[in-house]
Amino acid sequence: MAHGYYKNQDQVLARLKRIEGQVRGLQRMVGEDKYCIDILTQISAATSALNKVAVGLLEDHIGHCVVEGTRDDNVDMVAEASAAIERLLKS
Amino acid sequence: MAHGYYKNQDQVLARLKRIEGQVRGLQRMVGEDKYCIDILTQISAATSALNKVAVGLLEDHIGHCVVEGTRDDNVDMVAEASAAIERLLKS
Amino acid sequence: MAHGYYKNQDQVLARLKRIEGQVRGLQRMVGEDKYCIDILTQISAATSALNKVAVGLLEDHIGHCVVEGTRDDNVDMVAEASAAIERLLKS
Amino acid sequence: MAHGYYKNQDQVLARLKRIEGQVRGLQRMVGEDKYCIDILTQISAATSALNKVAVGLLEDHIGHCVVEGTRDDNVDMVAEASAAIERLLKS
Repeated sequence: MAHGYYKNQDQVLARLKRIEGQVRGLQRMVGEDKYCIDILTQISAATSALNKVAVGLLEDHIGHCVVEGTRDDNVDMVAEASAAIERLLKS
Repeated sequence: MAHGYYKNQDQVLARLKRIEGQVRGLQRMVGEDKYCIDILTQISAATSALNKVAVGLLEDHIGHCVVEGTRDDNVDMVAEASAAIERLLKS
Repeated sequence: MAHGYYKNQDQVLARLKRIEGQVRGLQRMVGEDKYCIDILTQISAATSALNKVAVGLLEDHIGHCVVEGTRDDNVDMVAEASAAIERLLKS
Repeated sequence: MAHGYYKNQDQVLARLKRIEGQVRGLQRMVGEDKYCIDILTQISAATSALNKVAVGLLEDHIGHCVVEGTRDDNVDMVAEASAAIERLLKS
């Protein structure tokens, strides 16, 4: 049973792999006592990259809901997507 | 031609009216030289309230897209909604 | 007793006045049943503008803490500022 | 030359290690085609955790600026910190 984002799975995995590298880079920077502001810049980059992945998944998810528009459980899927957007905005 | 959020129009307007009051309250606080941290707390409250309105509008919009699922221009509506979510996350 | 942001008070008030106008513009857009995505774009603009005011106030506040660096209550002021930043990030 | 966050270095590294684990968990979820909304929840958790690290670093940095309050380059350090906060809010 696919969940709507399968078509971009490789791209999503490549992005997450890159974010993992950014987080490991952050550990190296902290371990080497790099300048705080440079570390914060790198954190902003990782957060942006995570949000980009989230928006991509949401786009596929919403598109999936739309295509399946006649299924009865779509109201719940829309409410679920909205709750996920709200969590992202608060995180 | 309605745009999908009409069912909650009164609630949305009431929330925006309250946010307008919060922003006027902020002007009063700044004019009275209130403590900076209290002003920042009030800014966070207004921003949260704006995001709540945004999530509500998105929920109606996505629901509308889903209901209209057979229309050809829905792919664009999904892309548009995703772009709007991305702007919100960056704002 | 001034609170550190007094030097930019006029600018801060002008920005908040403009944000109040944006929020009133949002009410007009909702009342006129404008397209949801355009309303969301305007919400993003208002949120960005509020965050800009917040960053300006924080800059003045931190600068004020630094200048007053020998006062005993500065540890609390720093903790307070950090808590305010955290609230902004979550709002 | 220490940069102000050295006192919490172990804690910061432990948090970043945990975030690295969360990002690897995300790759596993995507690889196993887990439900999109669950993946988004996990992204929100990782983003929150990154922001928590950022706020901790900022608190140490601002505290450091305050302690060093008489140094001439502190105006720049405050401007730099504000720019970093702005980037975090936009990321």
